[in-house]
Formats: sequence, structure tokens, C-alpha cells
Amino acid sequence: MDKLCFPLLLLLLLVQLCMQLAASYSTVKFLPGFQGPLPFELETGYVGVGESGDAQLFYYFVKSEKNPREDPLLLWLTGGPGCSAFSGLAYEIGPINFNVVEYNGSLPTLHLNPYSWTKEASILFVDSPVGTGYSYAKTPLASQAGDFKQVQQVDQFLRKWLLDHPELLSNPVYIGGDSYSGLVVPALVQQISNENEEDIKPLINLQGYILGNAATEPTVEENSKIPFAHGMGLISNELYESLKMGCGGEYVNVDPKNEVCLNDIQAFSKLTSEIEGAHILEPRCPFSSPKPRESSRKRRSLNVNEQSQEFLVPEPPLPTIGCRTYGYLLSYYWNNDYNVRKALRIRLGSKGEWQRCNFGLPYAREIHSSFSYHVSLSTKGYRSLIYSGDHDMMVPFLGTEAWIKSLNYSIADDWRPWILHSQVAGYTRTYSNRMTYATVKGGGHTAPEYRPAECYAMFQRWINHDPL
Amino acid sequence: MDKLCFPLLLLLLLVQLCMQLAASYSTVKFLPGFQGPLPFELETGYVGVGESGDAQLFYYFVKSEKNPREDPLLLWLTGGPGCSAFSGLAYEIGPINFNVVEYNGSLPTLHLNPYSWTKEASILFVDSPVGTGYSYAKTPLASQAGDFKQVQQVDQFLRKWLLDHPELLSNPVYIGGDSYSGLVVPALVQQISNENEEDIKPLINLQGYILGNAATEPTVEENSKIPFAHGMGLISNELYESLKMGCGGEYVNVDPKNEVCLNDIQAFSKLTSEIEGAHILEPRCPFSSPKPRESSRKRRSLNVNEQSQEFLVPEPPLPTIGCRTYGYLLSYYWNNDYNVRKALRIRLGSKGEWQRCNFGLPYAREIHSSFSYHVSLSTKGYRSLIYSGDHDMMVPFLGTEAWIKSLNYSIADDWRPWILHSQVAGYTRTYSNRMTYATVKGGGHTAPEYRPAECYAMFQRWINHDPL
Repeated sequence: MDKLCFPLLLLLLLVQLCMQLAASYSTVKFLPGFQGPLPFELETGYVGVGESGDAQLFYYFVKSEKNPREDPLLLWLTGGPGCSAFSGLAYEIGPINFNVVEYNGSLPTLHLNPYSWTKEASILFVDSPVGTGYSYAKTPLASQAGDFKQVQQVDQFLRKWLLDHPELLSNPVYIGGDSYSGLVVPALVQQISNENEEDIKPLINLQGYILGNAATEPTVEENSKIPFAHGMGLISNELYESLKMGCGGEYVNVDPKNEVCLNDIQAFSKLTSEIEGAHILEPRCPFSSPKPRESSRKRRSLNVNEQSQEFLVPEPPLPTIGCRTYGYLLSYYWNNDYNVRKALRIRLGSKGEWQRCNFGLPYAREIHSSFSYHVSLSTKGYRSLIYSGDHDMMVPFLGTEAWIKSLNYSIADDWRPWILHSQVAGYTRTYSNRMTYATVKGGGHTAPEYRPAECYAMFQRWINHDPL
Repeated sequence: MDKLCFPLLLLLLLVQLCMQLAASYSTVKFLPGFQGPLPFELETGYVGVGESGDAQLFYYFVKSEKNPREDPLLLWLTGGPGCSAFSGLAYEIGPINFNVVEYNGSLPTLHLNPYSWTKEASILFVDSPVGTGYSYAKTPLASQAGDFKQVQQVDQFLRKWLLDHPELLSNPVYIGGDSYSGLVVPALVQQISNENEEDIKPLINLQGYILGNAATEPTVEENSKIPFAHGMGLISNELYESLKMGCGGEYVNVDPKNEVCLNDIQAFSKLTSEIEGAHILEPRCPFSSPKPRESSRKRRSLNVNEQSQEFLVPEPPLPTIGCRTYGYLLSYYWNNDYNVRKALRIRLGSKGEWQRCNFGLPYAREIHSSFSYHVSLSTKGYRSLIYSGDHDMMVPFLGTEAWIKSLNYSIADDWRPWILHSQVAGYTRTYSNRMTYATVKGGGHTAPEYRPAECYAMFQRWINHDPL
């Protein structure tokens, strides 16, 4: 290499690096499948976290449609672990929804969600942990994920992102999520709080957190499935009484010699095995994270390493229209479309097939209970909204109520219905430690997906410091 | 009166009487609001029962669409007391349903119910007790009704009707109904059985009975509302525990000195007062038995005696479209139309305004529990199907399960899911005494109205002696 060439090459590399950094986020004005320009402000991008930014976390940022300068900023994590932030964006609390019609080969279309929480707050939907959605690792090492790593990385993500968006540095910040995020979010709130206390910059104007049907103490939640199923009429009184007697209320850590209890648990499992866990009244349909035939065919060319597996594992059946999961299926067709990825500014070659939920992540489940984080956070005075879709059997409301009770907070405003349009939308109770609990009547595991109007009203009231 | 005139007048009277008798039932080929000829056989008519037939019970008879010569005959009573058989016909198990669209002054229209139980059985929908629907009393004395009188009259009705339809005399006969009929139907089955034993003609080929969300032991059912509401997440665990402790499980007959219990019951009532009792997840809407403005205006001219009351009682608000009760509202417009009444062969001047549920009936509630009838009927070997829409708080499934348990029948086929189209439609258990219990998952107070496909499958299997 001659003397002239080397500095030129270096310059070229620097320019490339700068461009990549400059291009790390973009405003998205149009989305394929959505007619006309987006009537909300959407930014997508990547933030590199972890060792030399080897974990590239993708996000969707939707600006508050009210007063983005002052409205809170909510960072939202979908559960799984491994479910894309897109689920939050397009099925739960974000501004778009699919038009759920039979797929005919053309791109699924989108419409506005009138109950988007972005009418009240700016929301950062983050594909985390790495490997989720469009997030990717640059090295095999960086693809390793786990609860604590996720906490570190999302914390780092938020600080970096805020530095890139200094105009939002003073906005109140909330962290939210549902399902598995119940284990991660409180630890993340704690981490942010700790770093604030250590005066690590930028200081984050952390106000509190929101959790829906949140995993908190998996044993408590697993145990609560039995009284829940009984209350909902899925098991007989006799089996319930026998379970209580024989197992002493403990259905997870059972003495292997306790045959009565084990048999009863087996009977319970059989009786509920065909029930849709996310909402006991909805039809049970094929997979929540489908691999549609077309895109898996596509994947063969995108991801050579998985080819062999592809031929061994039989294709699961596809959901039919009328299934809630059919709406999920559409997300595969949409997200694996070239123009969609281009519109979202997905880095070419960064990701093979997009999956709604990637359950094959290398992920260490390290937080076995987030109870202690709640205890700690409450002493620090953070606000919290804990809600439960009351027809969810994955994390039943009874489980959530059980750990809340264990917190031993005094009650500020006791159990009462909360109302929307003169109808009981659920029940709520407020605790002295700025914690609000609410059920969403008729809601499922991801309550805003099942009861959008009610959950929007709940969020709107809570985020504005109004009683539910 | 001269000698010639008298016999002529007598003849005229006789002819008139014969005509009235001959005209006591008719085949209805067309119904206003339903396009084209009816694709099922509908007969309507009156049967005079009680003292010299002074109580004229109106009925709709729909012939089985399968094999009417052999299929069972089901006599169906709607509850209330005072709710018209038309509710069973047009909202629950009969062959027609309203097209529920906004009323614009023209006659509400009808479509076929694909899940009509008449695909498996002939059904006699009877407007009973007298005063209900189109049934009427010829004398003030005959308008007095009560449980035992109803039992006598429906029994008499059935015998008379069968004598008029001798071709059905050998068909298996079932008696069915829901809600309040749970008190009357078992007594009626007992009555028919007794008369069969006494060899009273015509012998009725009585096989069994069907009851849905049936009032049986009102105290048991009232008490069951509290654990039901708790299981469904409507009251807090703390209130539930306090109720159990303070009231000792007895929430009806409370010691007036037991203030803790009384306060808790009051709290319970307040928490659930805005819940729709017939289905806890549905919106609570104005009245189940509405008086639409138009028809109540009409009523003023039809029923002079109620005029004064009309001006004192303020009009209740009308339900809006989207309310289940809006569908009920349509029945008022339809049934109070001149051409509809003509098509149904309603006797002119026999009835003022038709009401879906006439709660103003003079009615003596005499049967305070039908438990003993079940005990007696089971020893006689009658089949029974007892089902519960599991989201009904008026007669919760827990109450029904409680009295069934008290029967102390041995279990033939224990609690298991019953399946329709690969989905859990509910749970079922069979007892040795030919009693089948079934829950209808997601069903309300009148389960076939909420889960028509599931309830049709349940009925079809049971009536054909197949397991659910």
C-alpha cells in the first residue's frame, strides 16, 4: 500500500462510519400499506449498545400527538422474551393496526388505531433483547442475551437515544411493558434510578412504570392459575377442593411423592390444555408466532444455516381468518416485504426473516422474581400502574393481586369500578405508595389488544395524574 | 223474541263457537319481515285452559326440520315469569332471528337462525302463564296466575294440544325452559308424570327435561353470586374473605344485628350494581323489557286502564344500537304491527300492547325450590340436561353446581371439556341418574342467545343420546 493510498482509505472508512452514524435514525413519512403520509411522527433507527456497540437495538419512536415537548416519554418493551416491539406498535398501544382480511398475496394494509397511547405520550418501542424483531448482533458474542444484559443495554439505549434527542431530555420518562417484561422493567427502572443517583449523565427524568399482565413472581402466577381456572368455571369444585387440600395451595414445587397432588395437577392440565391462555374465551388457534409458508420459503434463501432444520420440522398449521393469530400472521407478510424494510430503514443484510416472536433466542432468564424491585422502587416514590386483563390465564389477575398484597402497601382508594362511557371497564385500587392497580374487564394477556378503548382511557387518566 | 228467531240465534251462536274452535290453530306460511315463504312449518294457535277455557294460552309450534314423525317434541317455557315464548323463538332456540339494524319506522326484518333447535326436534313455544305474550284471560279471575296454576294449565295445554295433533302422540316428549322456568318445569314434569301414572289420557311419552341457567333454589343461587363475582374478578379478595368470614357463607338470611356482614353485602352490591347481570362482559343497557315510545303511545288507545299510569311513570331511556337489548326493542315494533298480528292469527281485541316481558302480571310465586322435584324425577328415570352459560350472574353456574351436588348423584362421566369445531365449548359432567350438566363457555343467562352454535351442538348431541 503506497503512502498516498493509506490516508485516503482511512478517510473513506471515516466517512463511511460517519454516514452510518448519521443514518442511525430517520423519519418515516410513508409506510407501505398505509394510505397517504403518516398522520403521526414516526422515527426508526438503531442504537448500538454493549461492547463497542455490537448489539444494534432497533426502535420505533412515535411522537406524542398532543404536546411532544411536554408529554411524557414512554419506553415500551414487549415480552417474550423475544417478541418484537412491533407487537406493541401494531397490536397494542401504537398508532397503527392491520386491516385483518384474508391474505391474497398483496401487502397487508394498515389503518390508524383511534386508541393509540401516542395521543398522550411519546413512545419508544424497542426491539429488545438483541435478536428480537430487527435488532441484531454484529458478533456471535453480542447475540448472547439475558435479563441483566437486557437491563444494561436498554438503559444504555435510552441514555444514548436521549443524547441524540436533547429536546426530550427534560420530559417525564416512564418505562412500560407487558408479560415477560414484568421481570425486566422493574430491574430497568431500578438501574436507571441508581445511575441517576450516581449522577451518571444524562440524568433521566424518571417518573415511574407501567406493567400489564406482568410476570413478577412466576411461582405465584403459576399457582394462581388454579383458583383462576376455578373462578372462571374451567375446573370442577371437587377438583379445586382436592387440589387445595392435596397440594396445600402449592402447585409448582410439589413433593414428587405426593401422588394425590400430582394426579390432580395432571387432571387440571388436561382440562385446561385446549383453552386459549391469553384469553380464555377466545378460540385457541395455531401458534402465536407463526412461520407462514411463503416467508419460510423466502427464509431459505436468506438464512442458509437454517435450511437443514427447515426440512426436518414440519410446518405448523396456519391460523385461519377469525383467529386472533391471523392478524399476527399478517405481520410476517408485511415485515418480510422488501419495500417495508426499505421504508423502515432496516439495514440491508442485517436480519434474515423477521419474526413476531423469536423464541429461539439465546437468553438467560436470571430474574426469578421482580418483587424486590417493586419494594425498592416504592420507597423511592416512583409512580406505577399495574393492570391485568382479567380473562388472561397466562398471568392471571389473581397472581398479580397476590404479589401486590405481599407488598403490604396501605390502601389509599379501595377497590371500586372504573368507568368508561357509563360502563364498568374494570376495577381499580390505589395504594399509598403511588401504585395503582386496575383490572381490565374482559381483557386478555395483552389487555390493550382486547380492550383498546378502555386501556387508552386508563392510560390517559393515569398518565395525567387523574383518578381512573 | 219470537219462536222462529230463537233457534236461529242458537244456531248462529253454535256456528260461531265451532268457527272459533276450528280456528284455534292455523298454519302460518308467511311472516311479515321475512322474505318469501317460511322454510319451516309454523303453526300458531290458542288452547283454552282452566275454568271453562277462560285462560287462552297462545303458542307457536315449529315442526322438526328433520323427521317430525319421530323426532322429539319439546315444550319450551321462557322465564320471567311473564316473558313471551317469542323470546325463545326469536332470540334463543327457534328458527328466526331479527336483523338487528337501526329502526327507521319500517317493520323490523327477520332471517333464519342456522342453529335452531328445530333442526332436531319439534318445539312448542307456549306463552305462559296467562297474560304473557299473546295469552289472555277471558275473565278477571282467569288472569290470576301462579306457579301451581301454571303447572296445571300447561299440563292441560299439552294434553289438549296433543289430542288435536294425534300424529305426534307417540313422539318422545321433553319439557324445557330457562331462568325462572327452573322452578316451574320440574313441577310440570312431575305433574305430567303423575297423571301418566294415574293413566290419565292422553298418555304423554315423557322422556325428560332441559333447563338453562335455571332458578332452582333461589337462596343457593343468590348466595353463589358472591363467589361467582369473586372468581370473575369483580370484587377484591379482601372483601370476599371478609364476606365469607363475616356472613359465614350466608348472604340472604342475614342476622340484622350482623353489621359487618350487612356492610360487606352492601359493598358487594355497590361494586356489582353496574354490571350486566345476564352476561358480566356485555354492556349494561337500558331495560330488558322496554316500552318503546311509539308502542307505548299506541298502548294508550289500546288499553285505557293504564293511561293514568302512563303519565306518572317517566319513559325509561331506549337502548341504543350495539346494546343486546336493542334487538329486544325490535320485537315490540314487530309484534305490535297489525299485519304481523294478522299473520300470527292473533285474535282481534284479545290483547293490547304486546310486551316481551310482562312483569306486571298478577302472579303467585309458590315454588320456593324445585330441588325436591329433581330428587323425585331422578328416581323415576327421566333424562335431564342442565346447562349454565358461565358468564351469567343472575343464576351463576356455581349456584347450579351447588344444588346438583346436593342431589348426591354418583358421577358417571366426570368433568371434562366438550368440544365444538376443535374448541372447548364448555365443560360437562354426567350423573348416574341420567342427568347431564354442561357449562357453556362465554354464555350468558340465556345461553343459546350468546353461544348459538355451541348450544345447538349441545342440544343435538343430548337429544340424540350422544355424549356431549
